[in-house]
Amino acid sequence: MTSLKRLPGIGERSARRLAFHLLSATDAEVAELSDAIARVKRETVLCEQCYDLTDRSPCAICRDPRRDASLVCVVEEPADLASIEKSGRYRGLYHVLGGAFAPIDGVGPGDLRVAELEQRVRDGGIDEVVLATNPNAEGDATAHFLSDRLRGSGVRLTRIAYGMPLGGDLEYADHVTVGICIENRRAIE
Amino acid sequence: MTSLKRLPGIGERSARRLAFHLLSATDAEVAELSDAIARVKRETVLCEQCYDLTDRSPCAICRDPRRDASLVCVVEEPADLASIEKSGRYRGLYHVLGGAFAPIDGVGPGDLRVAELEQRVRDGGIDEVVLATNPNAEGDATAHFLSDRLRGSGVRLTRIAYGMPLGGDLEYADHVTVGICIENRRAIE
Repeated sequence: MTSLKRLPGIGERSARRLAFHLLSATDAEVAELSDAIARVKRETVLCEQCYDLTDRSPCAICRDPRRDASLVCVVEEPADLASIEKSGRYRGLYHVLGGAFAPIDGVGPGDLRVAELEQRVRDGGIDEVVLATNPNAEGDATAHFLSDRLRGSGVRLTRIAYGMPLGGDLEYADHVTVGICIENRRAIE
Repeated sequence: MTSLKRLPGIGERSARRLAFHLLSATDAEVAELSDAIARVKRETVLCEQCYDLTDRSPCAICRDPRRDASLVCVVEEPADLASIEKSGRYRGLYHVLGGAFAPIDGVGPGDLRVAELEQRVRDGGIDEVVLATNPNAEGDATAHFLSDRLRGSGVRLTRIAYGMPLGGDLEYADHVTVGICIENRRAIE
């Protein structure tokens, strides 16, 4: 139970419920779970091109010939990549930085995969780099730094759109987002 | 206490607290509040140009010579107007529709100030109409309807930007918003 409680999102009660579940499960079920947990760590590697988590490098996205290899979307973490994939609206490749600048926690450019991104751009074949770090202070600072570093490399640099989220309400939105959604208004065809 | 409980957001406990407060307040304080409440209804009118709530028509925004009268922002409710004003990023005028299409509640074009908007556009002097109805199904349907009605009138039609709200996180954003923020990405200068 102590091991279970160390997992994120698992407190005292959940740990007890899981422990009781395991006690009442068959030996085969318990062995399967135990084996799966051991495998996660052993078989997961980083993709050598995009640095996403994968069971085989290059990852399935980097290997997919139907993806547009001239388009690279830079994200902070594998979870952001997964979120963009779930949207189904992006057909290019990715580059996982491994975080964003966080001066308070001592995270600077050297701790992120910036040199690896610059190398990919120098290797050629990339027309556009979409900076999809998160829309907060750390993500903006990181996007700003990357656009400075990649300026002059010949690739087109873009940033994800800021504005009102779908289903949002102007009355309850923060005033910076409201200001942006007015300033960045788009022409209706 | 029954009257107090009828106010929005005031339940049994709050009503009791307010009632006890009034009992312990001075006669002058109670008279002032009672008078202020009576005045709200008596002195608040709709601005004859933009239909915002005001104590004097035309309202302070419509009267202000520093505002750009060639730009009109269409909102659903006075609260949306207040939110855009708070952003400090908009210097044009407004048009309050009085709601959005809601077929389930029986709200159609005739229940909104659409004819009044068309008249303002026909009166001339307007270059751009910003459709700032809310980014949900009702607001989108209303914006769509208005752009159909105003097409061919010569004014430029724009819609507030959709995308990631400031401080949002790609990992936790809904997949439609994530898709939009990738598709509507903007070039970095």
